[in-house]
Amino acid sequence: MPDTYPIEQLRGFSAAVFRHFGVPDADALLAADVLAMSDLRGIDSHGVARLHAYHDMLALGRVNPRPNVRIVRETASTATVDGDNGLGLVVGPKANDVAIAKAIAAGSGWVAVRGSNHFGIAAYYPIIALEKGLIGWAMTNATKLVAPLWGAERMLGTNPIAVAFPGCEEPPVVIDLATSTAAFGKVEIAKRAGKPIPDGWAIDRDGIMTNDPAGLIDGGALLPLGGTREQGGHKGFALAAMVDLFCGVLSGANWGPFVPPFALRQEIPKRSVGAGVGHFFGAMRVDGFMDPDEFGRRVDEWVKTMRATKPAPGTPGVVVPGDPERLAEVERRVTGIPLSPAVVADLRDIAKKTGINFD
Amino acid sequence: MPDTYPIEQLRGFSAAVFRHFGVPDADALLAADVLAMSDLRGIDSHGVARLHAYHDMLALGRVNPRPNVRIVRETASTATVDGDNGLGLVVGPKANDVAIAKAIAAGSGWVAVRGSNHFGIAAYYPIIALEKGLIGWAMTNATKLVAPLWGAERMLGTNPIAVAFPGCEEPPVVIDLATSTAAFGKVEIAKRAGKPIPDGWAIDRDGIMTNDPAGLIDGGALLPLGGTREQGGHKGFALAAMVDLFCGVLSGANWGPFVPPFALRQEIPKRSVGAGVGHFFGAMRVDGFMDPDEFGRRVDEWVKTMRATKPAPGTPGVVVPGDPERLAEVERRVTGIPLSPAVVADLRDIAKKTGINFD
Repeated sequence: MPDTYPIEQLRGFSAAVFRHFGVPDADALLAADVLAMSDLRGIDSHGVARLHAYHDMLALGRVNPRPNVRIVRETASTATVDGDNGLGLVVGPKANDVAIAKAIAAGSGWVAVRGSNHFGIAAYYPIIALEKGLIGWAMTNATKLVAPLWGAERMLGTNPIAVAFPGCEEPPVVIDLATSTAAFGKVEIAKRAGKPIPDGWAIDRDGIMTNDPAGLIDGGALLPLGGTREQGGHKGFALAAMVDLFCGVLSGANWGPFVPPFALRQEIPKRSVGAGVGHFFGAMRVDGFMDPDEFGRRVDEWVKTMRATKPAPGTPGVVVPGDPERLAEVERRVTGIPLSPAVVADLRDIAKKTGINFD
Repeated sequence: MPDTYPIEQLRGFSAAVFRHFGVPDADALLAADVLAMSDLRGIDSHGVARLHAYHDMLALGRVNPRPNVRIVRETASTATVDGDNGLGLVVGPKANDVAIAKAIAAGSGWVAVRGSNHFGIAAYYPIIALEKGLIGWAMTNATKLVAPLWGAERMLGTNPIAVAFPGCEEPPVVIDLATSTAAFGKVEIAKRAGKPIPDGWAIDRDGIMTNDPAGLIDGGALLPLGGTREQGGHKGFALAAMVDLFCGVLSGANWGPFVPPFALRQEIPKRSVGAGVGHFFGAMRVDGFMDPDEFGRRVDEWVKTMRATKPAPGTPGVVVPGDPERLAEVERRVTGIPLSPAVVADLRDIAKKTGINFD
């Protein structure tokens, strides 16, 4: 059993680490909040498990602790924001707030972001929009890890799409999906367990589909959602491309294989085609389309109808997007966050390097 | 070899059929144009192959030939349009024009549509936006055919997403994907050929994954993109859900299993939860984010970089979204549109019923 830690302890530690590197207090709390939401929602890969990577980037001066996050171009409902190479955990929420403000003023707001870094879980951003009663949208590009269908090398990130719709009595529908078939972390877990990975997850360095986790890790690539052509891999590639074109190309950030890494162990691309990592945020006022109470009731009815789908034999039945994460949060607020020994060792290493008390 | 027909002959015939049922001349030409683009781009399932279904719906008075398509709610950058039960091929383009006009005025425009019917290929709409130099977006819900992951019955349509980005010297990137693993038409082709279908495409009426095309056709369901849980089927379900929530729930249209059929042979849902079929259109001004020339050059570079990906062995290499359809159009404008004997028989049947000359 892993040890568990109260979320407030982890949030406080993360904020102190960010402050240690000169991140202003409000920004440090914001960044810690993004990580905490990930840990609460059970997305263990994107919470404090990543704090050491952020620590390293700040310690080496690869990320700007006090960025001047600014709008460089705008219309009533659109903007491009330059993140000045700040933490994505700070630039992301600030750019998302621009989308929200534009939505409140003009019905919808759409913000492309350049000069950013890894922004945490994509679902954080539409969940913030939900708190204002808005429909929220977030996408980001990321370090290359995924091959286009019929390609033999890493050319795109796992480029997630997150969208959230407010309900009324039912909880909101919160969608957050990477556009690859599987997560890199799942391949690492298979490797540690000495188990093969399924068809459709990965190719090796020669571009051949592999069931060997090492085949991916040693210069191979994840496959886009769908995996093979027969299973719709061209669709997953098209979705990853869409995310990259909005986040990277339209913002002036790096795109495709040129997106910079979020951790030191990853290779720095030989070429730069823009500024940092790119994101894209959207927010829409429900009353720009429909009476919000009516919409909430319709979402409730949609959720209930999907839950009532006849279940396929041998399965738990239909799971509405966002339900597992919401249930994880309810539990983890009480039980604390389970951390693996490797993550605890990472946090203790940060504590040692920074002199900040962890436990 | 199928016979081929010049696109102008098919376009003229389609327009005449629509006019025959009282569709105003400009609307009939618009509807015929949507079908023609599908045939030109090689999407044979959505062009004149569907004309008999539109004919039937008009002949029975199930579709309004002279709808009052109107905005029922709006902000600077959003609107809801009621299609008054018109042809989707007419309501869709008109609502898309509202999104385009709002984008020109406010940077972006987003339009939810209710009271519509089948709107043709999704890519038509962003391609129209491209002609104005805009980034275009279109989605629609559709008659139930797809099971949510772990469900045993049809609850969602194939709910496509189409997005297009203008290039400069390179052609635009045109994305158009159904959120199911495979198209129903491909299962029908397998059935006629007496061939099995791959894992991950469909379940039978008991909710068990099947390789028998008849298992799907006889009360089974297509699977969402990804197919199984291991292959990311929950992601395909989430995408189909997103499309349904924007197109059906937010617009006031029918959603999920209650979306009305587009052809007579399909069962009418027992319950109505809104008006007709729903769509969602978006348009964004490139200069709301970036200098359009710079964007075009960046898209060009992105396209060239993706095309230059090292190809996987035994494959044609990476295909940029929209390339196959663009090449089909170049060829078909010269050679004409190949129509199967069954489609030609359908068109001759329409000619006989309406007295309009086909060939």
